[in-house]
Amino acid sequence: MILGVDPGLTRCGVGVIEAGASRRLSFIHVDVVRSDPQTSQDLRLLAIYNGLAEKIERFAPDTVSIERVFAQENHNTVLGTAQAAGMAMLAAAQRGIPVALHTPTEVKLAITGNGRAEKIQIERMVARILNLNVLPKPADAADALAQAICHALRPAGALAGGEREQHLTTAQRQWAEAAQTSKRRHSVDRGM
Amino acid sequence: MILGVDPGLTRCGVGVIEAGASRRLSFIHVDVVRSDPQTSQDLRLLAIYNGLAEKIERFAPDTVSIERVFAQENHNTVLGTAQAAGMAMLAAAQRGIPVALHTPTEVKLAITGNGRAEKIQIERMVARILNLNVLPKPADAADALAQAICHALRPAGALAGGEREQHLTTAQRQWAEAAQTSKRRHSVDRGM
Repeated sequence: MILGVDPGLTRCGVGVIEAGASRRLSFIHVDVVRSDPQTSQDLRLLAIYNGLAEKIERFAPDTVSIERVFAQENHNTVLGTAQAAGMAMLAAAQRGIPVALHTPTEVKLAITGNGRAEKIQIERMVARILNLNVLPKPADAADALAQAICHALRPAGALAGGEREQHLTTAQRQWAEAAQTSKRRHSVDRGM
Repeated sequence: MILGVDPGLTRCGVGVIEAGASRRLSFIHVDVVRSDPQTSQDLRLLAIYNGLAEKIERFAPDTVSIERVFAQENHNTVLGTAQAAGMAMLAAAQRGIPVALHTPTEVKLAITGNGRAEKIQIERMVARILNLNVLPKPADAADALAQAICHALRPAGALAGGEREQHLTTAQRQWAEAAQTSKRRHSVDRGM
């Protein structure tokens, strides 16, 4: 089972899927964990942490997959987003559950084959892949499911690099390249 | 008792002081909580959280005072710093301990009367205020003590604004202005 997280301080999407035989994916759960913008930063982080920890306890996923946050993004919200992602990492690490990080570009590529896909395309593909009759709403919820699907569909050679990538499809190769790019960017971040 | 935190993902300074009668300050404890840069981000945050939670449990401070992080700072490290600050906020909030946030400028003003003071000036004043025979080292430890001292020395009217500020000294007025400026910047950040 994979629990995907679309991190945010005000709204944090959570999506849970089951990856069965031959990569068949099933929908399990979707929700949004919220914090009250009128309360102090520490109480908001506590609310996000408690909500995420409750989901992780309930579903006991094999992996928690979280959208990777970059400093280049919107300055006004990026610190809160990074802190919310930190709450998800901590809640997983405290329970010995491995954490994966995938960028928005990796998610879009994995789901639509297009790293610049529109939100509505992502939502439609998420609904199709998971056999949902309605589009997952709100956007945070759809993004959390997309993050989990991305982790489930990641090509075997994507992060290992080397020979195995010769056998990838075009979409998988693009995905692998995006993953490598984000790894290089992350290597820079690792100085932090 | 006040527990100050200089947040960082690799090194997180912790300084504890006691504020006695007539603002007499005493040194209690100083240390640096570390994480291994070779491990994954989630395990690093877990190490920082565990180290900070242990300190907060041991000293049971009345307030945890943390350096406020801004997105404008160094891009490569700011997200890890923000996440480490988030670990401190969570560890305090989980124990019902109030959190205060002071900017580096507020800390420098409170301790030296100069918002652009050099590191060595801060270290010397921290040693003098706390009657230490040696300068507190490393820098993260000194900054954590400075953060705690800043919270202890904050002028009564600094954050309330209004009439009471008429009675402040010049240094206190500069401090209050810096605090107001950071509050305005923070109001923008609150959208996150």
